[in-house]
Amino acid sequence: MTIPFSFRLEAPDFIPSYYDTHIKRTLSAMQGQFLDQNAYDRMRAEDDTLLYEVYEIHRPEVPGELSHGISIVHPGRVGAEYAMTKGHFHRVLDTSEIYHCLKGHGFMVMESPEGEWAVEELSPGTVLYVLPCWAHRSVNVGAGEDLVTFFAYPGHAGHDYGTIEARGFRKLVLDRNGAPAIVDNPRWVKAASS
Amino acid sequence: MTIPFSFRLEAPDFIPSYYDTHIKRTLSAMQGQFLDQNAYDRMRAEDDTLLYEVYEIHRPEVPGELSHGISIVHPGRVGAEYAMTKGHFHRVLDTSEIYHCLKGHGFMVMESPEGEWAVEELSPGTVLYVLPCWAHRSVNVGAGEDLVTFFAYPGHAGHDYGTIEARGFRKLVLDRNGAPAIVDNPRWVKAASS
Repeated sequence: MTIPFSFRLEAPDFIPSYYDTHIKRTLSAMQGQFLDQNAYDRMRAEDDTLLYEVYEIHRPEVPGELSHGISIVHPGRVGAEYAMTKGHFHRVLDTSEIYHCLKGHGFMVMESPEGEWAVEELSPGTVLYVLPCWAHRSVNVGAGEDLVTFFAYPGHAGHDYGTIEARGFRKLVLDRNGAPAIVDNPRWVKAASS
Repeated sequence: MTIPFSFRLEAPDFIPSYYDTHIKRTLSAMQGQFLDQNAYDRMRAEDDTLLYEVYEIHRPEVPGELSHGISIVHPGRVGAEYAMTKGHFHRVLDTSEIYHCLKGHGFMVMESPEGEWAVEELSPGTVLYVLPCWAHRSVNVGAGEDLVTFFAYPGHAGHDYGTIEARGFRKLVLDRNGAPAIVDNPRWVKAASS
């Protein structure tokens, strides 16, 4: 694109009318990321369930651009843990990301490299600003409904999935008697430098 | 803010539940920007009409941050010309801006320093990407309804209003028998370098 462009986000599904890539993440892409490994293994043996999808408009990877798109986390649980995204830091750590929730009910689980954490609730109309340096993961706690967010981040940010894959997030969102609870992750590994 | 934060955008007015600044632009801030100076003078003699408002969440002016907020252009005309924002380039020219229209009906009028132009229509659900280097102005063509957009841009972008104040946009949006028409601006001054 060498001229400004626009596209549409329409209810009920909010799939962009234009995008460059469509990523689908299934259970097999999340090996080792859910707390209840037995529940994960049982589900995985039955089906490689689709957990979330990302439609992205890619822009050049420079600071003046904004990459953007739509994230759709489908409803579900693995054991007591709600469906969620892998979560990531940005490769260029001191870059932010902004989210606008369009549909559903969820939480953004975040943490800084120093081990600070924050969890913000998402419902239609919520704008969430993930500060530079904070890792972030979307969690869908809605009953039977997709969690849909529009996102934008600086073009040069990049993604670091490996740190979270290795250490996990400090906080998990689990079902407790039918309601979401934010609990400590017993397997969380604090960064050596923090 | 040293931790991630969220705020709400609620219908019908979409005023953010949290913001840092609230700018109000009235007719007097737009002296010389409308085509019909006589119509402007007549309106100005009666009242300094409120044309548009911007609620902004300011972030540090560095490339990893995203400043963001809500723009509300009220309905109206000055002569045949629809209510609009001043329009601007970014001070750091090669920075983009993203808009998500939440309410109303309008156009984004854009142009590059080389004199290329583009006009994109805005209605609820439209996402518009203003390429780096392109000036942009929101125009409300809706009958009696605000044009509301959510916007985000790189923290280091800054604003250059002076270039547009001096040269104008190449294209104007005028009412022609009750419908918007995109027409050449007879007073447009092409940049010397282009």
